[in-house]
Amino acid sequence: MLHQTIELNTRARCQFIDVMPQVRAFLASAPPDGLLVAYCPHTTAGVTINEKADPDVARDILRHLEKLAPADPAFLHAEGNSDAHIKTLLTGVSVQVPVVGGKPLLGTWQTLFFCEYDGPRQRRLELAFLPSAEGRSR
Amino acid sequence: MLHQTIELNTRARCQFIDVMPQVRAFLASAPPDGLLVAYCPHTTAGVTINEKADPDVARDILRHLEKLAPADPAFLHAEGNSDAHIKTLLTGVSVQVPVVGGKPLLGTWQTLFFCEYDGPRQRRLELAFLPSAEGRSR
Amino acid sequence: MLHQTIELNTRARCQFIDVMPQVRAFLASAPPDGLLVAYCPHTTAGVTINEKADPDVARDILRHLEKLAPADPAFLHAEGNSDAHIKTLLTGVSVQVPVVGGKPLLGTWQTLFFCEYDGPRQRRLELAFLPSAEGRSR
Repeated sequence: MLHQTIELNTRARCQFIDVMPQVRAFLASAPPDGLLVAYCPHTTAGVTINEKADPDVARDILRHLEKLAPADPAFLHAEGNSDAHIKTLLTGVSVQVPVVGGKPLLGTWQTLFFCEYDGPRQRRLELAFLPSAEGRSR
Repeated sequence: MLHQTIELNTRARCQFIDVMPQVRAFLASAPPDGLLVAYCPHTTAGVTINEKADPDVARDILRHLEKLAPADPAFLHAEGNSDAHIKTLLTGVSVQVPVVGGKPLLGTWQTLFFCEYDGPRQRRLELAFLPSAEGRSR
Repeated sequence: MLHQTIELNTRARCQFIDVMPQVRAFLASAPPDGLLVAYCPHTTAGVTINEKADPDVARDILRHLEKLAPADPAFLHAEGNSDAHIKTLLTGVSVQVPVVGGKPLLGTWQTLFFCEYDGPRQRRLELAFLPSAEGRSR
């Protein structure tokens, strides 16, 4: 299994960062067929796949997540960032993309975003590639 | 790795389509053990696993998603469908199901839904099967 | 592929249960490199990865999910638990964690939670480990 840790410096409390440049560099040394896994090892950040063409989409999503999970003085957690933990649950911390013939099966408008919900911080993203055991396929 | 692209024609703006018939046909030509991945290459549609027995569950979910992410004149994205992008983030675009002895480990009441949030449209769903490298298991 | 079914008895309508003890025991008999999949075969329960250090985080998340998807007399589904199905969609039913050198790549504060949304019940969690076909990696 190929594995690489990507370092990211986020610059706002909430921010989507397109990490496809790093993912494509990672895949360049991978076998042609298998499963790409992007795994976020944090509890106030996640990963998702959504539209890249218009940056207003990410802005609308972030603004709406703020409505769905605003800061709330009633939160019990002393750090006061439970809204970021909730956004992380709603987003998820791992995404999987099949890779066929060296190409991830992302659609035309898709990109992979690291989703910061409690920045700015230094963050990590784990990339893994599970090669297909092709000799066993029929 | 086995891979197949499924074509779907959705018929409403928001609609859940049970794709297990297509998934079962795909798995019929797969090795018995491995991981099924269903990947949605769109940014205004997703995939999820939920109840199939009573179609009212899907109706309740879709109606509630409309409350959680309604159309909003304040959206910046000029296409005006940011609600669909938000529903896609909340739903996710990939699901993974372990397959053991030829059977996906879905529970009694579960099925796999393609989730349209900005139809009607012609859509694709990518199915991939990663066979287990069993010779390496203990 | 290694596979094990975990049995869980939940004790409240909504409850997060840390299942890393069971996951670590499962991984002890797995090859060192591959992908861990935790799959929930239920439609009113899910799985997620979030903070373990302060139990107030799980409490804040559960309380907030109750606000996002409260019981609603307008639900069509006769069982009356559509809120639990909605929470399951928002949470997801599978999580994937890369395992490298025998260690899952969980971050310092992360743990894997089984998420009960319609308990108390007897539940199952499917654990699968897909070993990496390492001979094929470059």
